[in-house]
Amino acid sequence: MSYILTTQCADDIGLIAKITGLCNQHNLNIIRNNEFVDKDAQRFFMRTELTGEPHAEFLSQLRDVLPAGAKVALHGEEKTKVVLLATKEAHCLGGMLLKQFEQALNIEILAVIANYPTLEPLVKGFNIPFHVVSHEGLTRSEHDEKVGDLIASYNPDIIGLAKYMRILSPEFVGRFEGKIINIHHSFLPAFIGAKPYHQAFERGVKIIGATAHFVNNELDEGPIILQDVSSVTHANTAEMMAKMGKDVEKTVFCKALQLASEHKLFINGNKTVVFS
Amino acid sequence: MSYILTTQCADDIGLIAKITGLCNQHNLNIIRNNEFVDKDAQRFFMRTELTGEPHAEFLSQLRDVLPAGAKVALHGEEKTKVVLLATKEAHCLGGMLLKQFEQALNIEILAVIANYPTLEPLVKGFNIPFHVVSHEGLTRSEHDEKVGDLIASYNPDIIGLAKYMRILSPEFVGRFEGKIINIHHSFLPAFIGAKPYHQAFERGVKIIGATAHFVNNELDEGPIILQDVSSVTHANTAEMMAKMGKDVEKTVFCKALQLASEHKLFINGNKTVVFS
Amino acid sequence: MSYILTTQCADDIGLIAKITGLCNQHNLNIIRNNEFVDKDAQRFFMRTELTGEPHAEFLSQLRDVLPAGAKVALHGEEKTKVVLLATKEAHCLGGMLLKQFEQALNIEILAVIANYPTLEPLVKGFNIPFHVVSHEGLTRSEHDEKVGDLIASYNPDIIGLAKYMRILSPEFVGRFEGKIINIHHSFLPAFIGAKPYHQAFERGVKIIGATAHFVNNELDEGPIILQDVSSVTHANTAEMMAKMGKDVEKTVFCKALQLASEHKLFINGNKTVVFS
Amino acid sequence: MSYILTTQCADDIGLIAKITGLCNQHNLNIIRNNEFVDKDAQRFFMRTELTGEPHAEFLSQLRDVLPAGAKVALHGEEKTKVVLLATKEAHCLGGMLLKQFEQALNIEILAVIANYPTLEPLVKGFNIPFHVVSHEGLTRSEHDEKVGDLIASYNPDIIGLAKYMRILSPEFVGRFEGKIINIHHSFLPAFIGAKPYHQAFERGVKIIGATAHFVNNELDEGPIILQDVSSVTHANTAEMMAKMGKDVEKTVFCKALQLASEHKLFINGNKTVVFS
Repeated sequence: MSYILTTQCADDIGLIAKITGLCNQHNLNIIRNNEFVDKDAQRFFMRTELTGEPHAEFLSQLRDVLPAGAKVALHGEEKTKVVLLATKEAHCLGGMLLKQFEQALNIEILAVIANYPTLEPLVKGFNIPFHVVSHEGLTRSEHDEKVGDLIASYNPDIIGLAKYMRILSPEFVGRFEGKIINIHHSFLPAFIGAKPYHQAFERGVKIIGATAHFVNNELDEGPIILQDVSSVTHANTAEMMAKMGKDVEKTVFCKALQLASEHKLFINGNKTVVFS
Repeated sequence: MSYILTTQCADDIGLIAKITGLCNQHNLNIIRNNEFVDKDAQRFFMRTELTGEPHAEFLSQLRDVLPAGAKVALHGEEKTKVVLLATKEAHCLGGMLLKQFEQALNIEILAVIANYPTLEPLVKGFNIPFHVVSHEGLTRSEHDEKVGDLIASYNPDIIGLAKYMRILSPEFVGRFEGKIINIHHSFLPAFIGAKPYHQAFERGVKIIGATAHFVNNELDEGPIILQDVSSVTHANTAEMMAKMGKDVEKTVFCKALQLASEHKLFINGNKTVVFS
Repeated sequence: MSYILTTQCADDIGLIAKITGLCNQHNLNIIRNNEFVDKDAQRFFMRTELTGEPHAEFLSQLRDVLPAGAKVALHGEEKTKVVLLATKEAHCLGGMLLKQFEQALNIEILAVIANYPTLEPLVKGFNIPFHVVSHEGLTRSEHDEKVGDLIASYNPDIIGLAKYMRILSPEFVGRFEGKIINIHHSFLPAFIGAKPYHQAFERGVKIIGATAHFVNNELDEGPIILQDVSSVTHANTAEMMAKMGKDVEKTVFCKALQLASEHKLFINGNKTVVFS
Repeated sequence: MSYILTTQCADDIGLIAKITGLCNQHNLNIIRNNEFVDKDAQRFFMRTELTGEPHAEFLSQLRDVLPAGAKVALHGEEKTKVVLLATKEAHCLGGMLLKQFEQALNIEILAVIANYPTLEPLVKGFNIPFHVVSHEGLTRSEHDEKVGDLIASYNPDIIGLAKYMRILSPEFVGRFEGKIINIHHSFLPAFIGAKPYHQAFERGVKIIGATAHFVNNELDEGPIILQDVSSVTHANTAEMMAKMGKDVEKTVFCKALQLASEHKLFINGNKTVVFS
């Protein structure tokens, strides 16, 4: 069997030796290893690909040799469970549905929830449950609670906002802390807020981009996971940029969820550690 | 109304002045213009975006002022009609189906024809006709004729080989000359032939790629339309490269069909002119 | 002989036909042509590569057929004359000196002016005049006037700010309006102002960039010419980003000056038109 | 003090635990670690950044715990010593000279040797010794021996072929085995041999590239270190491609030497392991 061990804790001398030594004692063979120490934050991150059969007490023994408060997890080969939220735009959602159909990712999309019925035909075509939770007539809190309850009923590992054009309440964000990945249609921190392609057009930039980030309670300010860009010219209108940007958004969104499913993402304060 | 005028002919003095002058006489407003002269071949290519209402005799008047043998065409806003051929792999086919759903392209996919039934659920989900024409028990010529007849019944502008894993007979290629676009899973001319990712792995390259090209009667040798690449490392196996390569193949294939639909592609001997 | 004709004027019907028609009358053969119409600003831009021998009255005849206020210029094969300003950093300056040595560009670097003597050995090694104009003991106006007089004595076509770490007075900018190209060490409009790499590190971005722009009187706000980017990871400190960024800055700065020397750059309000 | 430990040996269970455990015993703090196991070749590679003060017997103790035949090395902060070979083209050579002037790399260029005097002014401007060893009137073996003796007198860690347009004799390659890095002006394995840009133009490719590789005794067939690419269009002649390609060659060559100087490069049969 094949496993991925993730470790994060306060930094200390000899952590790698302790972790790899314990793996060795348990006859776990290390295939691949990534570590990072954030010097400023004095924080240690490690991702280890293992083969072998860990004893039941492996993780508790590991915790015993690590600093107090260490977060360790051992992931088998099971798929990462994802619920996707959408509004009316198909590209990011469709990108993920297609990737699942291609069996390109170790991800299972449990359901799609949208505040409009527009995308139902697309989702149904892939035989994935589709739920409409309209925001009409509801306060933000009421809508978020309804959507949140529906999400919770699926118990996903990750919630992907596939162009979900709603601002989330602090309660919603808190309820799924560290689990929500959004795609923003600009190269953050440029063009925060609404209509980034129009802002980009007005400024006359020569490159546009997209940013996948974890969601926290500051708009467009969560830890950045991944960014990518695309060249534009004077001949591109804001509308053309928006169209061209969709390809970048789709790519970045799918790649960010893939990184999550491969246990390569760690949140480190307002930043991320990404072992790619 | 908005039009695209495409012109190719033997090079001569004053062609642009003649063409744009005639447009002006017909009160056609030029929005955008691209020209290219192949000095070696003495060949002239031009693509012109126009607004206005051309008279019925515009094209015949245009031919009168151009060298003999000129090929001119005036395209309105109608969609480019495409038939896609596939085998078992979903990524290039799905990429196009999704783009059509997103209304990202000025393309209408008329039908999908495959030599296996594997991809039927994907295609049906998008409400596109799906035909299986098995090659079992047929000679190459017989199969190609059957597939060709089915294609011909749709009368498409372009035939897209979305990972159609069959070598085409000269008859088939001749029947649809200049209309067949293939995606090859390597950065041509490197790794011509079978299993390019395995070849790339064995050679230890650091970049892999994909190539969209028009099909002629030399295997993997048709005029190249578009290429793109992706970085790989020593840690990537041939299988991982093949997986990573699918994203590039999908992107390049969809982009090549988009260029065709925007009338930006010209075949120039064993090369292409691409106005992007 | 080979020429480049640049035209900019108010948009009108039939401009391309008029310009190319006149070229034809003068037996000027059009090798390549680029046009752009800014619909919002109702402004027309065109760059034409010609061979032949224009009559003395070609430009005045051209002005006669164009809308009032048209700016036309005919450039022969002479080199674009550049004065470079620098402070202490070698990379952008050295990039240009090396390109000139390689004869990679149609540019003649007339002189380098710096406010510190640090880079003298580099410049002397390439046999280019090097002037130190220290800002010590001078007001900004006095220093800018002294530097400006020295620049003016060389009468350059373009002034390249090769990491010239001085804020320019409005008088200086006005004196050389439309001729000053700066390299900014961030992907504008992100991280305007000081220490952009430290800002980028703090925000945890995954891509850094550089921007070449014309200088006007708003700090880091001039028309953008060119941008390029480079990937960074969680493991890169601000200092490493600054180091990695130098390669992008060098590339973008040299490319922007090359575009200017090829007469491919037009200023269009707070944007640029770049025919590449 | 800061060190880089490089290890390569036959693969075995528990190697990482053994190496990091020994570091721990010696109070060496691991800052960063990269490992790779080539499953097919059963070969283990590791690069470790350390701080601390290793005892004299650290390396011998390390060898004791590793499989027989292990190659280990401990690099302090000293510069990597490089001799560059050139012919007449300035771009790759100048790129490295400029990087050294910028203090961008932990490299000391000891000397430049060329078979023509063309580049002497460039090299002298940077105060680096320049030697001409003309091949005129010498057999390949005689010339290679003369050049080899001169190189040997400098005892460099790496020999960089900065567009050295000579085919090397097996004796020369054997004499400096594993130390010679070449830049090839194509995206290998496409366009092996002479005039790759003309080959690329004839084939009508849309992307050109450059490849840095270790030199062995098969022409253009050594282990690939790094590759990069640049887009081209139908409008680019072979000469323009050659010019555009120079930027990619320069970038790739400098980056490959940088990787060598950072002890991130390992030769693994006909491939490389590159820890970037």
